[in-house]
Amino acid sequence: MEQSFVAWAKMRARRLPQVKLGIGDDAAILAGSSEDWVVTTDTLMDGVHFRSSEVSAERIGRKLIGVNLSDLAAMAAEPVAVFLNLCMPRNESQQMAADIYEGVCQVAERYKIALAGGDTNCWDGPLVVGLTAVGKTVGGLAWVRSGALPGDAIVVTGPLGGSILGKHLDFEPRIELAQIIRSKILIHAAMDISDGLSTDLLRMCDASHCGAVLDLDKIPVSEQAKQLSITSGKTPVEHALGDGEDFELLLAVAEADLRQLTELIGQSQCHKVGTFTSRTGLWAREGSRIRQLPVTGYVHR
Amino acid sequence: MEQSFVAWAKMRARRLPQVKLGIGDDAAILAGSSEDWVVTTDTLMDGVHFRSSEVSAERIGRKLIGVNLSDLAAMAAEPVAVFLNLCMPRNESQQMAADIYEGVCQVAERYKIALAGGDTNCWDGPLVVGLTAVGKTVGGLAWVRSGALPGDAIVVTGPLGGSILGKHLDFEPRIELAQIIRSKILIHAAMDISDGLSTDLLRMCDASHCGAVLDLDKIPVSEQAKQLSITSGKTPVEHALGDGEDFELLLAVAEADLRQLTELIGQSQCHKVGTFTSRTGLWAREGSRIRQLPVTGYVHR
Repeated sequence: MEQSFVAWAKMRARRLPQVKLGIGDDAAILAGSSEDWVVTTDTLMDGVHFRSSEVSAERIGRKLIGVNLSDLAAMAAEPVAVFLNLCMPRNESQQMAADIYEGVCQVAERYKIALAGGDTNCWDGPLVVGLTAVGKTVGGLAWVRSGALPGDAIVVTGPLGGSILGKHLDFEPRIELAQIIRSKILIHAAMDISDGLSTDLLRMCDASHCGAVLDLDKIPVSEQAKQLSITSGKTPVEHALGDGEDFELLLAVAEADLRQLTELIGQSQCHKVGTFTSRTGLWAREGSRIRQLPVTGYVHR
Repeated sequence: MEQSFVAWAKMRARRLPQVKLGIGDDAAILAGSSEDWVVTTDTLMDGVHFRSSEVSAERIGRKLIGVNLSDLAAMAAEPVAVFLNLCMPRNESQQMAADIYEGVCQVAERYKIALAGGDTNCWDGPLVVGLTAVGKTVGGLAWVRSGALPGDAIVVTGPLGGSILGKHLDFEPRIELAQIIRSKILIHAAMDISDGLSTDLLRMCDASHCGAVLDLDKIPVSEQAKQLSITSGKTPVEHALGDGEDFELLLAVAEADLRQLTELIGQSQCHKVGTFTSRTGLWAREGSRIRQLPVTGYVHR
């Protein structure tokens, strides 16, 4: 449902001057008198985003705040406060709510973010947890998806794929990394990789009215992606392209600034995986061969 | 769960300077450089807050934004934007999501509020809808619960009780009324009546470290409360005290300002229903008799 509904919703929602950036990016930007505010919200449901029978409530809480902070990081926003919504199964103890809360607090405290409100309800349905994160822009600057230019380098900040083996629950939202980069390097476009590199890169291309060529052999492939490929029937790079929930940053940066970026954050966090192009669509370069990547976000061979 | 959990959560959450008012009021206040931001969030669940089999999706959407705007009104904040979270049952059509969205948009447009983001998910569970509303303080002023003073008049802005007959779905959040009052009258404390006058008044008393005496015969009783009392075994005033989801404003105002308030908003919106007292607890005056009201929020005889 998500993509077509989002497109329709974007059309339906009236544009108003207090919103600088609305539906369709990682977060929204609301115009303030002196600084702008950045707001994002995400809901996780039992059986869809986690299994409460297999995962501790604290980890669910950490994932919940993590996915939202990752969206703020994608805008280079400084987090201010989070708001927690809990729909608790009636047969669960209050302890479970307290444990989710604890997980949220742990991550919030690490980044000096306040847990400032929310609501808690009981019902006969499964566990649903929602969180809204509010941040501020710093120096009047927010990263968006729509500024990539043909010729820009495509950069990712860490190894991709196989997050299902654990990273999708225990990851570090790139809040601090984004702040470091924002203060030194002009980034043309940014987003976080939540639905897989190929899917999210295509979204950035669409928002920026350009295309991209990926150098498949330059994509940093996680150990977990390699591990999965032993039994999955997919190659490690297919996992890196399609698995999702990596929560690394995807950046468009001028080729001329790439060296400075590498010096700033180190080679282990600065992987050039391709180049934006004026020809639209998503392309893969393997050796001298260039072919179109399927828009599903998966590489089928 | 709600009250004891909220008390614990308030204690657990670390206080940080960017939050002027955190857990425990109608909304949170975040400190900005020039104006403050007010954030509130509420979730409604099928079978708990509405029955999707009996209520149109548009009305669910209108209620969802209404309860959140009512919280902003209770702080005298000016709404800026809302964010919508949908957990859609997999067997429901996309039309239902569109209808909820439509209901939210209708109310948002009436108040020139932007629908600026959110998320949409499908699952095997029942419908869950969540909304976060973001507003600004005007003139550096936000109403809170904690400022009522002994001797202040207790004011409610409309008839109470019986909202289950329809008003709980179709009500006007008191956004405009709050703005009119805020600009002219010094309000000592404010909240919206969502859980019933007696319950919410006691919360205001607790936050303000005072008590209250209600004049039961001065409480404006809705026609719906009278209608329910024919078969419910409760008196109309018991419905007015305990039913909840009235979404009227509850205000603490100096006795000396009461006349001006009445002139400003009219007698039909300015009902003095009692007086705050230095003696804590909730009390009822019927004629010359004063007795304690049960803390459940219901009058049992």
